Amino acid sequence: MSATDDLLANAAVYARDFDKGDLPLPPALGVAVVACMDARLNVYGLLGLSEGQAHVIRNAGGAVTDDEIRSLAISQRLLGTREIILIHHTDCGMLTFTDDGFKAQVAADTGIRPPWAAEAFTDLDEDVRQSIARIRSSPFIPHTDAVRGFVYSVEKGTLTEVS
Amino acid sequence: MSATDDLLANAAVYARDFDKGDLPLPPALGVAVVACMDARLNVYGLLGLSEGQAHVIRNAGGAVTDDEIRSLAISQRLLGTREIILIHHTDCGMLTFTDDGFKAQVAADTGIRPPWAAEAFTDLDEDVRQSIARIRSSPFIPHTDAVRGFVYSVEKGTLTEVS
Repeated sequence: MSATDDLLANAAVYARDFDKGDLPLPPALGVAVVACMDARLNVYGLLGLSEGQAHVIRNAGGAVTDDEIRSLAISQRLLGTREIILIHHTDCGMLTFTDDGFKAQVAADTGIRPPWAAEAFTDLDEDVRQSIARIRSSPFIPHTDAVRGFVYSVEKGTLTEVS
Repeated sequence: MSATDDLLANAAVYARDFDKGDLPLPPALGVAVVACMDARLNVYGLLGLSEGQAHVIRNAGGAVTDDEIRSLAISQRLLGTREIILIHHTDCGMLTFTDDGFKAQVAADTGIRPPWAAEAFTDLDEDVRQSIARIRSSPFIPHTDAVRGFVYSVEKGTLTEVS
Protein backbone atom coordinates (compact mmCIF):
# COMPACT_ATOMS: atom_id res chain seq x y z
CA MET A 1 0.00 0.00 0.00
CA SER A 2 1.28 3.45 -0.94
CA ALA A 3 0.51 6.54 1.14
CA THR A 4 -1.85 7.53 -1.70
CA ASP A 5 -3.77 4.26 -1.24
CA ASP A 6 -4.10 4.96 2.49
CA LEU A 7 -5.51 8.42 1.76
CA LEU A 8 -7.94 6.94 -0.78
CA ALA A 9 -9.23 4.62 1.94
CA ASN A 10 -9.85 7.70 4.09
CA ALA A 11 -11.67 9.33 1.16
CA ALA A 12 -14.03 6.36 0.96
CA VAL A 13 -14.99 6.95 4.60
CA TYR A 14 -15.56 10.66 3.89
CA ALA A 15 -17.86 9.79 0.97
CA ARG A 16 -19.83 7.28 3.03
CA ASP A 17 -20.81 9.92 5.58
CA PHE A 18 -21.11 12.80 3.08
CA ASP A 19 -24.12 15.11 3.48
CA LYS A 20 -22.99 18.35 1.78
CA GLY A 21 -24.08 17.65 -1.80
CA ASP A 22 -26.11 20.80 -2.39
CA LEU A 23 -23.65 23.62 -1.68
CA PRO A 24 -23.45 26.49 -4.21
CA LEU A 25 -20.30 27.22 -6.22
CA PRO A 26 -19.57 30.75 -4.82
CA PRO A 27 -17.90 30.68 -1.38
CA ALA A 28 -20.48 31.49 1.30
CA LEU A 29 -18.17 33.77 3.31
CA GLY A 30 -16.84 35.70 0.31
CA VAL A 31 -13.28 34.95 1.42
CA ALA A 32 -10.20 33.68 -0.41
CA VAL A 33 -7.26 32.38 1.62
CA VAL A 34 -3.70 32.32 0.21
CA ALA A 35 -1.44 30.12 2.34
CA CYS A 36 1.78 28.15 2.28
CA MET A 37 1.54 24.47 1.26
CA ASP A 38 3.29 23.44 4.51
CA ALA A 39 1.93 20.16 5.86
CA ARG A 40 1.65 21.54 9.40
CA LEU A 41 -0.68 24.34 8.31
CA ASN A 42 -4.23 22.93 8.37
CA VAL A 43 -6.15 25.84 6.86
CA TYR A 44 -9.60 24.33 7.39
CA GLY A 45 -8.82 23.38 10.99
CA LEU A 46 -7.08 26.63 11.87
CA LEU A 47 -9.81 28.92 10.49
CA GLY A 48 -12.66 26.64 11.45
CA LEU A 49 -13.79 26.43 7.83
CA SER A 50 -16.40 24.03 6.65
CA GLU A 51 -17.17 22.94 3.09
CA GLY A 52 -18.49 25.76 0.89
CA GLN A 53 -17.20 28.74 2.86
CA ALA A 54 -13.92 29.98 1.33
CA HIS A 55 -11.53 29.51 -1.57
CA VAL A 56 -8.19 28.11 -0.45
CA ILE A 57 -5.13 28.84 -2.61
CA ARG A 58 -1.80 27.34 -1.53
CA ASN A 59 1.76 27.03 -2.81
CA ALA A 60 5.36 26.92 -1.59
CA GLY A 61 5.69 29.89 0.75
CA GLY A 62 2.24 31.36 0.18
CA ALA A 63 3.90 33.50 -2.48
CA VAL A 64 1.84 35.71 -4.76
CA THR A 65 2.92 34.99 -8.33
CA ASP A 66 0.97 35.20 -11.59
CA ASP A 67 -0.86 31.98 -10.74
CA GLU A 68 -2.20 33.37 -7.46
CA ILE A 69 -3.22 36.58 -9.25
CA ARG A 70 -5.04 34.37 -11.78
CA SER A 71 -6.79 32.43 -9.00
CA LEU A 72 -7.71 35.57 -7.03
CA ALA A 73 -8.99 37.30 -10.18
CA ILE A 74 -11.26 34.32 -10.92
CA SER A 75 -12.28 34.16 -7.24
CA GLN A 76 -13.31 37.81 -7.07
CA ARG A 77 -14.54 38.46 -10.62
CA LEU A 78 -16.49 35.27 -11.24
CA LEU A 79 -17.26 33.89 -7.79
CA GLY A 80 -17.88 36.98 -5.70
CA THR A 81 -15.20 36.89 -3.01
CA ARG A 82 -14.20 40.24 -1.48
CA GLU A 83 -11.83 39.51 1.42
CA ILE A 84 -8.34 37.97 1.21
CA ILE A 85 -6.44 36.29 4.05
CA LEU A 86 -2.70 35.62 3.54
CA ILE A 87 -0.97 33.08 5.78
CA HIS A 88 2.78 32.51 6.00
CA HIS A 89 4.27 30.57 8.93
CA THR A 90 7.26 30.10 11.21
CA ASP A 91 9.91 27.45 10.36
CA CYS A 92 9.04 27.80 6.67
CA GLY A 93 11.16 25.82 4.22
CA MET A 94 11.47 28.96 2.10
CA LEU A 95 13.70 30.46 4.79
CA THR A 96 16.23 27.64 4.41
CA PHE A 97 17.59 28.35 0.92
CA THR A 98 18.11 31.14 -1.60
CA ASP A 99 16.70 31.50 -5.10
CA ASP A 100 20.19 31.41 -6.55
CA GLY A 101 21.16 28.35 -4.52
CA PHE A 102 18.04 26.41 -5.41
CA LYS A 103 18.29 27.23 -9.10
CA ALA A 104 21.98 26.31 -9.17
CA GLN A 105 21.19 22.97 -7.51
CA VAL A 106 18.42 22.20 -9.99
CA ALA A 107 20.68 23.21 -12.88
CA ALA A 108 23.45 20.96 -11.56
CA ASP A 109 21.02 18.02 -11.30
CA THR A 110 19.10 18.46 -14.52
CA GLY A 111 21.20 20.64 -16.80
CA ILE A 112 18.34 23.19 -16.93
CA ARG A 113 18.11 26.37 -14.88
CA PRO A 114 14.46 27.01 -13.90
CA PRO A 115 13.04 30.07 -15.70
CA TRP A 116 10.93 30.93 -12.62
CA ALA A 117 11.95 32.46 -9.29
CA ALA A 118 11.98 30.00 -6.38
CA GLU A 119 10.40 32.72 -4.16
CA ALA A 120 12.68 32.07 -1.18
CA PHE A 121 12.74 34.80 1.48
CA THR A 122 14.65 35.79 4.59
CA ASP A 123 12.10 37.72 6.67
CA LEU A 124 8.62 36.40 7.32
CA ASP A 125 6.86 39.68 8.03
CA GLU A 126 8.51 41.35 5.05
CA ASP A 127 7.40 38.54 2.77
CA VAL A 128 3.81 38.84 3.98
CA ARG A 129 3.99 42.57 3.17
CA GLN A 130 5.48 41.69 -0.23
CA SER A 131 2.53 39.39 -0.96
CA ILE A 132 0.02 42.07 0.11
CA ALA A 133 1.81 44.62 -2.07
CA ARG A 134 1.71 42.30 -5.10
CA ILE A 135 -2.04 41.84 -4.67
CA ARG A 136 -2.71 45.55 -4.18
CA SER A 137 -0.63 46.47 -7.22
CA SER A 138 -2.35 44.01 -9.54
CA PRO A 139 -4.74 45.57 -12.05
CA PHE A 140 -6.68 42.29 -12.23
CA ILE A 141 -7.94 42.06 -8.64
CA PRO A 142 -10.84 44.47 -8.12
CA HIS A 143 -11.22 44.33 -4.32
CA THR A 144 -8.07 45.02 -2.32
CA ASP A 145 -9.42 46.97 0.67
CA ALA A 146 -9.84 43.81 2.78
CA VAL A 147 -6.46 42.10 2.33
CA ARG A 148 -4.91 41.03 5.65
CA GLY A 149 -1.71 39.07 6.23
CA PHE A 150 -0.70 36.78 9.08
CA VAL A 151 2.14 34.61 10.34
CA TYR A 152 1.06 31.24 11.72
CA SER A 153 3.20 29.73 14.45
CA VAL A 154 3.68 26.01 13.77
CA GLU A 155 5.00 25.74 17.34
CA LYS A 156 2.10 27.47 19.11
CA GLY A 157 -0.83 27.20 16.69
CA THR A 158 -1.36 30.98 16.82
CA LEU A 159 -1.98 33.53 14.05
CA THR A 160 -0.28 36.94 14.33
CA GLU A 161 -1.30 39.77 12.03
CA VAL A 162 1.43 41.59 10.09
CA SER A 163 0.93 45.34 10.09
CA MET B 1 -17.44 42.12 12.02
CA SER B 2 -16.02 40.98 8.69
CA ALA B 3 -15.91 37.34 7.65
CA THR B 4 -12.16 37.56 8.24
CA ASP B 5 -12.78 38.60 11.85
CA ASP B 6 -15.09 35.62 12.34
CA LEU B 7 -12.39 33.27 11.01
CA LEU B 8 -9.81 34.87 13.30
CA ALA B 9 -12.08 34.10 16.25
CA ASN B 10 -12.10 30.47 15.11
CA ALA B 11 -8.29 30.57 14.89
CA ALA B 12 -8.07 31.67 18.51
CA VAL B 13 -10.03 28.55 19.51
CA TYR B 14 -7.69 26.36 17.41
CA ALA B 15 -4.64 27.88 19.14
CA ARG B 16 -6.15 27.39 22.60
CA ASP B 17 -6.45 23.63 22.08
CA PHE B 18 -3.25 23.26 19.99
CA ASP B 19 -0.99 20.28 20.81
CA LYS B 20 0.95 19.75 17.57
CA GLY B 21 3.90 22.06 18.17
CA ASP B 22 6.71 19.58 17.54
CA LEU B 23 6.01 18.30 14.03
CA PRO B 24 8.94 18.16 11.56
CA LEU B 25 9.04 20.27 8.39
CA PRO B 26 9.06 17.37 5.84
CA PRO B 27 5.58 15.87 5.27
CA ALA B 28 5.30 12.56 7.15
CA LEU B 29 3.50 10.73 4.32
CA GLY B 30 5.81 11.95 1.55
CA VAL B 31 2.77 13.17 -0.41
CA ALA B 32 1.96 16.42 -2.21
CA VAL B 33 -1.65 17.14 -3.18
CA VAL B 34 -2.51 19.53 -6.03
CA ALA B 35 -6.20 20.49 -5.91
CA CYS B 36 -8.66 23.12 -7.03
CA MET B 37 -9.28 26.06 -4.67
CA ASP B 38 -13.06 25.35 -4.70
CA ALA B 39 -14.66 26.05 -1.34
CA ARG B 40 -16.57 22.75 -1.36
CA LEU B 41 -13.39 20.70 -1.65
CA ASN B 42 -12.11 20.12 1.90
CA VAL B 43 -8.77 18.44 1.18
CA TYR B 44 -7.93 17.67 4.81
CA GLY B 45 -11.41 16.29 5.48
CA LEU B 46 -11.66 14.31 2.26
CA LEU B 47 -8.27 12.61 2.54
CA GLY B 48 -8.38 12.31 6.32
CA LEU B 49 -5.18 14.33 6.62
CA SER B 50 -3.87 15.60 9.91
CA GLU B 51 -1.26 18.29 10.53
CA GLY B 52 2.22 17.35 9.29
CA GLN B 53 1.27 14.67 6.77
CA ALA B 54 1.16 16.19 3.27
CA HIS B 55 1.84 19.32 1.26
CA VAL B 56 -1.34 20.86 -0.11
CA ILE B 57 -1.08 23.02 -3.24
CA ARG B 58 -4.27 24.66 -4.54
CA ASN B 59 -5.35 27.11 -7.22
CA ALA B 60 -8.21 27.87 -9.59
CA GLY B 61 -8.94 24.57 -11.33
CA GLY B 62 -6.09 22.59 -9.84
CA ALA B 63 -4.12 23.60 -12.92
CA VAL B 64 -0.42 22.80 -13.24
CA THR B 65 1.35 26.02 -14.23
CA ASP B 66 4.90 27.18 -13.51
CA ASP B 67 3.95 27.98 -9.91
CA GLU B 68 2.79 24.41 -9.22
CA ILE B 69 5.97 23.08 -10.87
CA ARG B 70 7.93 25.41 -8.53
CA SER B 71 6.02 24.15 -5.49
CA LEU B 72 6.33 20.49 -6.48
CA ALA B 73 10.04 20.88 -7.22
CA ILE B 74 10.59 22.36 -3.75
CA SER B 75 8.35 19.68 -2.21
CA GLN B 76 10.26 16.80 -3.78
CA ARG B 77 13.80 18.18 -3.93
CA LEU B 78 13.99 19.84 -0.53
CA LEU B 79 11.29 18.18 1.55
CA GLY B 80 11.34 14.58 0.40
CA THR B 81 7.86 13.98 -1.04
CA ARG B 82 7.55 11.23 -3.67
CA GLU B 83 3.84 10.80 -4.43
CA ILE B 84 1.50 13.35 -6.07
CA ILE B 85 -2.29 13.36 -5.87
CA LEU B 86 -4.18 15.64 -8.31
CA ILE B 87 -7.80 16.54 -7.55
CA HIS B 88 -10.20 18.30 -9.91
CA HIS B 89 -13.96 18.26 -9.23
CA THR B 90 -17.45 18.31 -10.73
CA ASP B 91 -19.30 21.64 -11.14
CA CYS B 92 -15.95 23.45 -11.39
CA GLY B 93 -16.08 27.18 -12.14
CA MET B 94 -13.39 26.65 -14.77
CA LEU B 95 -15.99 24.82 -16.90
CA THR B 96 -18.20 27.94 -17.04
CA PHE B 97 -16.03 30.27 -19.11
CA THR B 98 -13.33 30.32 -21.76
CA ASP B 99 -9.83 31.76 -21.58
CA ASP B 100 -10.65 34.19 -24.39
CA GLY B 101 -13.91 35.26 -22.76
CA PHE B 102 -12.37 35.81 -19.34
CA LYS B 103 -9.43 37.75 -20.74
CA ALA B 104 -11.73 39.91 -22.88
CA GLN B 105 -13.89 40.66 -19.83
CA VAL B 106 -10.88 41.64 -17.73
CA ALA B 107 -9.53 43.76 -20.58
CA ALA B 108 -12.90 45.50 -20.95
CA ASP B 109 -13.00 46.25 -17.20
CA THR B 110 -9.38 47.25 -16.64
CA GLY B 111 -7.94 48.16 -20.02
CA ILE B 112 -5.29 45.46 -19.59
CA ARG B 113 -5.40 41.97 -21.09
CA PRO B 114 -3.91 39.45 -18.63
CA PRO B 115 -0.59 38.06 -19.88
CA TRP B 116 -1.40 34.65 -18.32
CA ALA B 117 -3.79 31.92 -19.45
CA ALA B 118 -6.96 31.65 -17.35
CA GLU B 119 -6.65 27.80 -17.54
CA ALA B 120 -10.36 27.24 -18.28
CA PHE B 121 -11.24 23.77 -19.60
CA THR B 122 -14.19 21.90 -21.10
CA ASP B 123 -13.57 18.27 -20.08
CA LEU B 124 -12.72 17.30 -16.49
CA ASP B 125 -10.98 14.00 -17.20
CA GLU B 126 -8.98 15.51 -20.05
CA ASP B 127 -7.83 18.36 -17.83
CA VAL B 128 -6.68 15.93 -15.13
CA ARG B 129 -4.69 14.11 -17.82
CA GLN B 130 -3.30 17.46 -18.98
CA SER B 131 -2.12 18.23 -15.42
CA ILE B 132 -0.49 14.81 -15.10
CA ALA B 133 1.23 15.27 -18.47
CA ARG B 134 2.57 18.68 -17.47
CA ILE B 135 4.08 17.20 -14.30
CA ARG B 136 5.57 14.21 -16.12
CA SER B 137 7.10 16.42 -18.81
CA SER B 138 8.75 18.82 -16.36
CA PRO B 139 12.52 18.46 -16.06
CA PHE B 140 12.35 19.91 -12.52
CA ILE B 141 10.26 17.23 -10.79
CA PRO B 142 12.40 14.17 -10.11
CA HIS B 143 9.73 11.65 -9.04
CA THR B 144 6.85 11.18 -11.47
CA ASP B 145 6.13 7.44 -11.18
CA ALA B 146 3.51 7.96 -8.44
CA VAL B 147 1.33 10.71 -9.92
CA ARG B 148 -2.38 9.89 -9.78
CA GLY B 149 -5.30 12.08 -10.78
CA PHE B 150 -8.89 12.14 -9.53
CA VAL B 151 -12.23 13.88 -10.01
CA TYR B 152 -14.04 14.74 -6.78
CA SER B 153 -17.84 14.82 -6.90
CA VAL B 154 -19.09 17.85 -4.97
CA GLU B 155 -22.55 16.26 -5.13
CA LYS B 156 -21.62 12.82 -3.78
CA GLY B 157 -18.37 13.36 -1.88
CA THR B 158 -16.65 10.62 -3.89
CA LEU B 159 -13.22 10.51 -5.57
CA THR B 160 -12.96 8.81 -8.98
CA GLU B 161 -9.56 8.06 -10.48
CA VAL B 162 -8.84 9.23 -14.02
CA SER B 163 -7.05 6.59 -16.06
